[in-house]
Amino acid sequence: MDQTLAADAPPHAPGQTLADALFRPRSIALIGASADPAKNTSRAQRVLQKAGYRGRILPVNPGRREIFGETAYPDIRDVPGPVDHAFLMVPPPAVEQAIAGCAERGVRVATIYSAGFAEMGEAGRQRQERLVALAREGGVRLVGPNCLGLVNVTDGVPITNNAAVEAEPLEPGPLGLISQSGSMMGALLSRCRTRGLSFSKLVSVGNECDLGVGEIASLMVEDAATEAVLLFLETLRDAEALARAARRAHALGKPVIAYKLGRSEVGRRIAVSHTGAMVGGDELADTFFRENGILRVDTLEGLVELPRLVMGRRPPKGRRVAVLTGTGGGAAMVVDRLGSLGIEVAPPPEAMRARLAGQGIEVSDSPLIDLPMGGGKGQYTTVLKEIVAGEHCDAVVAVLGSTARLRPTQVEENILSVYDGSKPLAVFCAPQADAALAICDAAGVAGFRTPETCADALNAYLSWRAPRGLEAPDPAAAGARALLQDYGPRRLNEAEACAVFVALGIEGPGSRIVADAAEARGIEGPAAVKIVSPDIAHKTDAGLVRLGLRGPEIAAAVTEILARARAAFPAAKLEGVLVAPMQQGLAEVILGYRHDPEVGPVVVLGLGGVTAELSRRTAVRLAPVSPETAQEMIAAIPELRAIEGYRNLPRGDVPALAAAIRALSLLAALPREMVAEAEINPLIVRPEGQGAVAVDGLVVPG
Amino acid sequence: MDQTLAADAPPHAPGQTLADALFRPRSIALIGASADPAKNTSRAQRVLQKAGYRGRILPVNPGRREIFGETAYPDIRDVPGPVDHAFLMVPPPAVEQAIAGCAERGVRVATIYSAGFAEMGEAGRQRQERLVALAREGGVRLVGPNCLGLVNVTDGVPITNNAAVEAEPLEPGPLGLISQSGSMMGALLSRCRTRGLSFSKLVSVGNECDLGVGEIASLMVEDAATEAVLLFLETLRDAEALARAARRAHALGKPVIAYKLGRSEVGRRIAVSHTGAMVGGDELADTFFRENGILRVDTLEGLVELPRLVMGRRPPKGRRVAVLTGTGGGAAMVVDRLGSLGIEVAPPPEAMRARLAGQGIEVSDSPLIDLPMGGGKGQYTTVLKEIVAGEHCDAVVAVLGSTARLRPTQVEENILSVYDGSKPLAVFCAPQADAALAICDAAGVAGFRTPETCADALNAYLSWRAPRGLEAPDPAAAGARALLQDYGPRRLNEAEACAVFVALGIEGPGSRIVADAAEARGIEGPAAVKIVSPDIAHKTDAGLVRLGLRGPEIAAAVTEILARARAAFPAAKLEGVLVAPMQQGLAEVILGYRHDPEVGPVVVLGLGGVTAELSRRTAVRLAPVSPETAQEMIAAIPELRAIEGYRNLPRGDVPALAAAIRALSLLAALPREMVAEAEINPLIVRPEGQGAVAVDGLVVPG
Repeated sequence: MDQTLAADAPPHAPGQTLADALFRPRSIALIGASADPAKNTSRAQRVLQKAGYRGRILPVNPGRREIFGETAYPDIRDVPGPVDHAFLMVPPPAVEQAIAGCAERGVRVATIYSAGFAEMGEAGRQRQERLVALAREGGVRLVGPNCLGLVNVTDGVPITNNAAVEAEPLEPGPLGLISQSGSMMGALLSRCRTRGLSFSKLVSVGNECDLGVGEIASLMVEDAATEAVLLFLETLRDAEALARAARRAHALGKPVIAYKLGRSEVGRRIAVSHTGAMVGGDELADTFFRENGILRVDTLEGLVELPRLVMGRRPPKGRRVAVLTGTGGGAAMVVDRLGSLGIEVAPPPEAMRARLAGQGIEVSDSPLIDLPMGGGKGQYTTVLKEIVAGEHCDAVVAVLGSTARLRPTQVEENILSVYDGSKPLAVFCAPQADAALAICDAAGVAGFRTPETCADALNAYLSWRAPRGLEAPDPAAAGARALLQDYGPRRLNEAEACAVFVALGIEGPGSRIVADAAEARGIEGPAAVKIVSPDIAHKTDAGLVRLGLRGPEIAAAVTEILARARAAFPAAKLEGVLVAPMQQGLAEVILGYRHDPEVGPVVVLGLGGVTAELSRRTAVRLAPVSPETAQEMIAAIPELRAIEGYRNLPRGDVPALAAAIRALSLLAALPREMVAEAEINPLIVRPEGQGAVAVDGLVVPG
Repeated sequence: MDQTLAADAPPHAPGQTLADALFRPRSIALIGASADPAKNTSRAQRVLQKAGYRGRILPVNPGRREIFGETAYPDIRDVPGPVDHAFLMVPPPAVEQAIAGCAERGVRVATIYSAGFAEMGEAGRQRQERLVALAREGGVRLVGPNCLGLVNVTDGVPITNNAAVEAEPLEPGPLGLISQSGSMMGALLSRCRTRGLSFSKLVSVGNECDLGVGEIASLMVEDAATEAVLLFLETLRDAEALARAARRAHALGKPVIAYKLGRSEVGRRIAVSHTGAMVGGDELADTFFRENGILRVDTLEGLVELPRLVMGRRPPKGRRVAVLTGTGGGAAMVVDRLGSLGIEVAPPPEAMRARLAGQGIEVSDSPLIDLPMGGGKGQYTTVLKEIVAGEHCDAVVAVLGSTARLRPTQVEENILSVYDGSKPLAVFCAPQADAALAICDAAGVAGFRTPETCADALNAYLSWRAPRGLEAPDPAAAGARALLQDYGPRRLNEAEACAVFVALGIEGPGSRIVADAAEARGIEGPAAVKIVSPDIAHKTDAGLVRLGLRGPEIAAAVTEILARARAAFPAAKLEGVLVAPMQQGLAEVILGYRHDPEVGPVVVLGLGGVTAELSRRTAVRLAPVSPETAQEMIAAIPELRAIEGYRNLPRGDVPALAAAIRALSLLAALPREMVAEAEINPLIVRPEGQGAVAVDGLVVPG
C-alpha cells in the first residue's frame, strides 16, 4: 500500500461529485478480493496495480492480512480512512452485508460484480430490491449487480475484473462506452483496437439496479475527455434518463451511438389494447432513439466504424449522399442498400460538372461518379474537393477497388491529402485492404470493411436529427386530468373513456349508457348497441354488440344483449348497455396511447377493421406529438393514401385525424398511474371538412 | 513462343469441348496485346507467362513482330496453327473485324475485354448484336464484352488483364466464381484469400452477349476441381439456363451461392397489370433462387464465409439451430437476427440434458447454452459433441467471447478436435479474433467475423431447398393454348380474357358483351356494366364502369357509357359494353401471371380493392405452382387470415382460391409471345364450399 498517498487522501468529502467517486475515486475497496491468481476475484487488484493506479487499493477478505502487497481487511468496516468506491465480488448472499458496511463507512459508489439478482428470477429480484433499499438509505450509489465493472481509461483507473482489460493495456481515447452486456465490452474493445480507436471511460452496467445507462451517460457526456458515447443495449430500463443525457450530449456536440438488440421484449408484453399488441419493441426503440437525437446502428461493426464519421459533427440537413467510385460493383452494393433505406444518391450538379469540364475532367450526370484513382493527374483530388465542398449532398462516400489493396498509399495521396473534413466522408474498400484502412484510421477518417456497415453508418448519420423539443403542457391535458381524478384509478367504461377523449378535444360519439330497454325507448337510430362491462373482452365475438339498429329494434336489442350477457358471463359486472349513433366515414383507424415500460409515452396509429387489423401496419411516435409529426404518422401508413386524394377517391378529413392523434398524445402529460394505456377504436374519419369521431375506446390506469 | 508445344498441338479438333476451349485452351491469341508494360493491354500476356502457361501464347498487334519474347502477328488470320481461345483488347470498332478473323480461323471461344457495347446505350447495343450475329454464324462462342476475362486456377491458365490476378498469384482451390462485375472479382479474390479460401475457376462475364452466367455455371458444376460455385450478380439475364445449372449442381452435390444486387431493375419495368407493378425485382429474384436450390446471401461477406458451411452438404430438413455460447451478448446478436429471419433456436432436448447431467454437466432448457470454454474438464467438448449429433437441430453455432482472442488455441482443443463435420457448424467470434478464425479457416470450419454475416449464412443454409421439380404439362394449359391461338396475338378484351381463365379451370363471371342498349334488355341484374376497349385504361376513373344495376338501369347505363366513352375517347376503338352479374364474396384478391424478363414465368397473389392495393402486400412464386405452394402464397398474406377462420369471421373458400392460383400459373406452359402478362382482378372468394370467381381480367401477349 502506498502509505504516502493514503496519508495524503482527505477524509470523505460529501461535496465530492458522483462522477469523481465513480471514475476518479481516491480509494477503492475490493470486497471479496482473492489472493489466488487463478481466481477471477484476484484480477481486479492486479488490473489496478498494472495500471499504476495512484489511489489506495483496499482488498477486503476475512481470511487474509495481505494480498499482492497490499494490507487486506476482514471487513469494509475495518478499512481505515475514507473509501470512495467499493468493488464487490462476494457471493450474492454476502452482498447485502457488504453494502450495509459500505453505507456505514460512507462509501459513495459500490460496483457489484456479483451475479444472482434480478437476472435469476423472482427470488433474485427481491434480493436486488432489498439491496437497492439498503443502498438508498445509506447514501451509496450502485453500479450493477451482475456487471464487469468500469474503467476510467483517461486517468488509468480500472475497476473491473474483465480478462480483456487485463490482457491488453488500454490506450486513452475519445470514446465512452456503456454496455449492458459485460462480455461485449471486451469484444468492442478489441474490435475498436484493430481500428486504432480508443476509449475514455467504459462501464458495464449489468442489472442497472440504481445507476443505469441514462444516468451514467449523463456523467459521461460531461466528461471532458469523452467526445462520443457508444451504447451496447439489450433493453431500455430508464428511457427518460437516457433522453436527458442525449439532450445534453446534443447541446455539447457529442454524438451518442446505440446498438440495441431488437426483439427481446416483444413476447413478454401484455397489452390490453390492439395497438399495444400491434407495435413491436424494436419499432418503439427506433422511435425513441430517433426522436432523442441518438444515432442507431443496425450492425455491430457499425458501432465501431460510425464514430469517426460523426465525432465533432451535428445532425445533417438532408439525406443525400454523393458517391465517387473506382469500382461499379463495389459502389452498387452500398448504393443498393442505401436505396432500400430511403437514402438518395445525389448526382453532381450541372454547375459542378461545368467547372470540372473547364479543367478537362468529364463527369457524367450519373449518380455514381466513376473515376479510377490512378487515372489523370489530380483528377481524383479535384473531383473529391468539389464534392466535399458541394451543397448537393450531406455526406460523401469514396468506394475503392483493387487500388486500395495494391497501392494503399494512393488513399493518402488522393483522398486524405485534400480532404478537409468539412463534410463526413466514408471510405469503403471493396477488396480486403487492411493497409488502406489503417491509413484512414490513422488519419481519423472513417473506413469501412463491408458495404453493409458503410450503408448502416451512413443511414445512421443521415437519419440523425436534433432531439425533440420539450413542450409546454397543453390545457387540454388539464381537462382530461380533472376528469380522470374524478373517475378515480380504475379501468373506465366506453362512455367514460370517450368523455376523456372529448376533454382532450376529440369529437365524441354522442352515446348514452342505458340500464334497460325502457331507457332506450325513443332513440331513433341508426344506432350501435353494446354491453358495458369491465369483465368482458371480445364483446363482438360474444354476440354482445349489434350494429345499425333503428327505432324499436334498439330497445329490443338492449333487452336481448343484457340477457345474453347475464347468461354467458354470470360473474361479470354489467354497467349497462351503450347506445351510440352509427357513425359513417371514409376510413376507420385505431388510435392508441401507451406509457411504454421501455420508452415512456407513445402514440400509435393503426388501421381499423378486422382485415386492416391483420395488416399490422402502424406508425408510432413518442408522445406528445406535434401536428407535423401527426401528419408524418398518417403518411407512414400506405393504406391511408385512400383518403388523401388517391386516384379519384373522396378525400377524408385528414387534418381532423392529425388533430385527434395530437390530442390523444397529450395524455403524456399525465402520470402512468393515471393512464397507462388508452385507445380509440375505431376513430372514424369523415369526408373533408367534416371531422373525425371517436366511436369507442378504453382508458386503463397503470 | 514454345515451338515444341506449337508443333505438338493438334489442329483444331471440332470434337474439343467448349469447356476445354474456355478453360484449357492449348493456344491463346491476345488480340490487341501491347508491348508497353505500363498499358493494361500488356498485362494479359504477362499474367499468362508468370503463371507458366504451357500452351501457345499468340500476341496479335499489327505494329510489332515480337512482344515479351513471343512472336507477334499483325492479324489473327496470320497466326499459324490452330487457335482455341482469343482474348480481345482492341477498341470497340475493331472488335467486329477481330471476331470475323476468329471465325475464319476456327477459334472456338473469344473473350472480349473491350468495352463500349450494350452497356453504352442504343448504338452500343446494336454493335453488340452485330457481334453476336457474326460470332454465331462463324461458330465462335463469346465471353463478354466488357469483361475482365477468366482464370482457370486449377491448371494455371489465366486469360485476363485483371491487375489483382497479376499482383498476387492464385492458389488452386475448390470454389468457382462467376461475376457480372469485373472489379468485384478482385475484391472477392482478396477477401477469400484472407480466409484461406481458393478458387478453381473464375469468370468475369461482362455483358453476357453469348456465354452467360447460366451456361458458364453449367460448365463449372461439371468441373471436377470445383466443389461450389459463387455468383456475384447484378441482374439475371438467362434465368432458365441458370436454373438448369442449379438443378445439375444439386444432382452433383455442389452448392451454388449467389449474392445479387437488389433493387436495380425495379424502376425500369413497365407493367400493364397491377400485380406487375406490385412486385419488386428483388422479391422475384429471391423466389427464383429459393425455388431453384440456389443459396442466396444478403451480405458481401456472406458470399465469402458461407461456402465452408455448405460445401459437400445437402439442403437441410428443418430450420432449427442450436447455440452454444461463452458470451450472452455475443450470442444474442446472432439469435436476434435469426429470429427476425424466422429461424428458431432449439433448446437442448430433455433426454440430452439428462445424459449430460449424468456426466455432471448441468445445462438449462434455455435456448442458449451458456458454457465458457475454459470451464470444467471436457465440459465444452462433451456438450458440443452431443449437440452436433443431436436430432433437435439442423445447424450449430458456437459463439466465442474473449477466449477466442486471448486463448485462440482453445478453438482447436475445444471445438475442432471433436467436431466430426456431421452437421454444419458456424463459429462466430464476438471479439476481434483473427488468430482463432485462422485456426478455423485452416481446419475448413466456417468462421464468422460479424453476427450479421453469421446469421445471413445460417439463414441461407437453413432456407436451402432442393430445386423445384419439373412438372408434366397440365391438359388445362392445352385448352388455354387452343383458345389463345384462336384469338391470335393481341391484347384480349375482358370477356376473352375470362374465357381463357375458364379454359384453365377457373370459374368465370358469366358476362356478356353487348353492342348497344337493345342487346342488354331483359338482363335482370344485379349487374356491373363497363366499356370494352383496348385503348382505354383506368375505366373506373373515367366513369365508364357502373356497378349494382338492375333491370332497365342496365340498358340505360349501356347507352350512357357508350356515349361518354365516345365523347371522352373519340379515337378509341370501342368493342362494346360488358354486362356482368354482380358477384359477392368474402374477399377480393388480384391474381397475376407474368413472364418476367429476369426470372421467367411467375404467379402473384395480392389483395383486391383500392385500400388493399395500397397495402402492396403480395406473394410471388415461380409458375407453375403446386397446390401446396399456392396454399403457402395465401398464408403469406396476413390480411387473408380474415377468410381462414380468424376470430369468428366466416370462412372463405380457400381451397378454391388455391386452385385458382394453381390454374392461372399453368400459363407458364405457353410461350411468352402468347401470354406475357395476365391478371384476374378481382377474383372474388365466396364462402366455404362456394368457389371463387374471376370477375374481370386481362391477357396480354409478349
